[in-house]
Amino acid sequence: MNKINKIILNSPLDMHLHLRDEKMLELVAPLSAKYFSGALIMPNLVPPITAKKTLLAYKTRIQNTTKNAFTPFMTLFFQNYSQEFLESIKEDILAIKMYPAGITTNSENGVNLLDLKSLAPTLKLMTELGIVLCVHGESSGFVMDREKEFLPIYESLALAYPNLTIIMEHITTKEACELSQKYDNLYASITLHHLLFTLDDLAGGFLKPHLFCKPILKTHEDKEALLSLALEANPKVMFGSDSAPHPKDKKEACGCAAGVFTAPLALQALCSLFSKHKKEQNLNKFLSLNARSIYNLNKTNFINKNITLIKKNFLVPKSYDLGSEKVVPLFAGEELDFSIEEISTL
Amino acid sequence: MNKINKIILNSPLDMHLHLRDEKMLELVAPLSAKYFSGALIMPNLVPPITAKKTLLAYKTRIQNTTKNAFTPFMTLFFQNYSQEFLESIKEDILAIKMYPAGITTNSENGVNLLDLKSLAPTLKLMTELGIVLCVHGESSGFVMDREKEFLPIYESLALAYPNLTIIMEHITTKEACELSQKYDNLYASITLHHLLFTLDDLAGGFLKPHLFCKPILKTHEDKEALLSLALEANPKVMFGSDSAPHPKDKKEACGCAAGVFTAPLALQALCSLFSKHKKEQNLNKFLSLNARSIYNLNKTNFINKNITLIKKNFLVPKSYDLGSEKVVPLFAGEELDFSIEEISTL
Repeated sequence: MNKINKIILNSPLDMHLHLRDEKMLELVAPLSAKYFSGALIMPNLVPPITAKKTLLAYKTRIQNTTKNAFTPFMTLFFQNYSQEFLESIKEDILAIKMYPAGITTNSENGVNLLDLKSLAPTLKLMTELGIVLCVHGESSGFVMDREKEFLPIYESLALAYPNLTIIMEHITTKEACELSQKYDNLYASITLHHLLFTLDDLAGGFLKPHLFCKPILKTHEDKEALLSLALEANPKVMFGSDSAPHPKDKKEACGCAAGVFTAPLALQALCSLFSKHKKEQNLNKFLSLNARSIYNLNKTNFINKNITLIKKNFLVPKSYDLGSEKVVPLFAGEELDFSIEEISTL
Repeated sequence: MNKINKIILNSPLDMHLHLRDEKMLELVAPLSAKYFSGALIMPNLVPPITAKKTLLAYKTRIQNTTKNAFTPFMTLFFQNYSQEFLESIKEDILAIKMYPAGITTNSENGVNLLDLKSLAPTLKLMTELGIVLCVHGESSGFVMDREKEFLPIYESLALAYPNLTIIMEHITTKEACELSQKYDNLYASITLHHLLFTLDDLAGGFLKPHLFCKPILKTHEDKEALLSLALEANPKVMFGSDSAPHPKDKKEACGCAAGVFTAPLALQALCSLFSKHKKEQNLNKFLSLNARSIYNLNKTNFINKNITLIKKNFLVPKSYDLGSEKVVPLFAGEELDFSIEEISTL
């Protein structure tokens, strides 16, 4: 097989993205909008997005920042909602995101998963209205076991709501990979960083705060299981960067916030990774087609773009300026071997 | 039982201590010397200590800094040494410290443990001369498994050299705790931070660089196993702080160096811990008597001191000044509930 030196991505979608707000939104949203056709926007602002007015205002802020070159798929923060409310907001959202309370950045208002029954009315309504449920699936147990401990809850949800589409967000373990294959209505998003790194990269040599994320990086075996699903573009999985910017001072600090900022280099790094494994032919599925199928999206639902990448070194910026602060991306100051060559909006 | 509000420690010994050199030595050595009678001084300087001249010069620098109020027990960095050399240095050292290559701060020149046979001549000589072997017992595998993977090497050493005293330094796992009970010639040192923290404290919430150490913090089950040995003052274990200062800029950084700085608060924190578990009566064993027995030390071998602690809040300094830099201790800016009341040199 000849070496593939050019990869054309058709409307890449990032199905798990943190755009934050205000200054940070203005910095990071254009970086996603440049390369992606659309993204599923996480609702964990402070306070989280639970009302139509705040959701639409946030969407407008994103659109103003991204100059309509990009489709923000909006999400609500899970709580019990009325039928009337859900019917009124159905067309404005693609999914509702459920967080266990206190498990990650700005998730203090999340749900108590010991009380799944109390969530039933909303989950039933979501099923009826065809709203997707996205879940940050972690227990409050030992940090390396949190996802594994959460898997029975995914199983309960999948069994109790067979017609509800459930996304296990940013899966990180072999066991979650296996579970994604077990129930028809259970899907998963996979980040770039969990395909590339393990706890050894975070803490095996020096401690690397810019690799600190939730769920935490896991073992080599876990990474291999994720890689295997992604490289084959298994139809139950799709790309969701979980790109989560924080100011440098919040990362290189005494109490470092969780999140890896990957939006501006995710496509380049994915091309390198899939190219290394000679799986370039599966990249469009992992980056777009699987998500369209899982979320029932068609070409009219997002801005269509072709992104052409070529085998040419790309020097990742050391940081992005955020006023007087800086935001450090993954691979800051390092070279990736694929670069964006051309972007054409269709 | 009445609440014990006063604890008198008789000549506490810190059997695993990093004093570094130059400015850092001048800052941290007096902090250990103030509260401890003596300490086993680690040899992983740059370059490591492998010659009599550099060892004695380092000892002199320590003594000059600590004004003879403290006994530095010196160690050599393990490599193959001649009989002549070991005989000549025997009286100047208490132990030889073995590092697998590249596993922790300044261990680049360590041994290749795949080739244990090549170490045999020196290990035989150490046995004959009664020199203790201290080992940093970690493989180069997955960061959470490194100590467990190393245990068969401890077993091989314990079996092959039944008359060699072998110290498993800073043990962190349940399995190492169990192994310490299995061979008569196998002992262990235990740090303060591994008695108090798990990976959850390092990375379960925010990432805490000042809790980053090698071996990495482990699970709750591991911590409980260590606590159980320490609180009972099991005769196979002793205190070794592994207090390892780094400048603040090296800790709160993009690549944070491993090491927790505990020397100035270790006694206060140990009193709190043992008091909480109503095991104050075992503290002198864990902090001094067990080490004397393991290393064959008697009162003439170190400066004798009584350290009196009382139940009274101690505010740990936010940092210690190192010229223009700072060194941040464990519990910086927090209060411990035992304070040093009196220090009397006997």
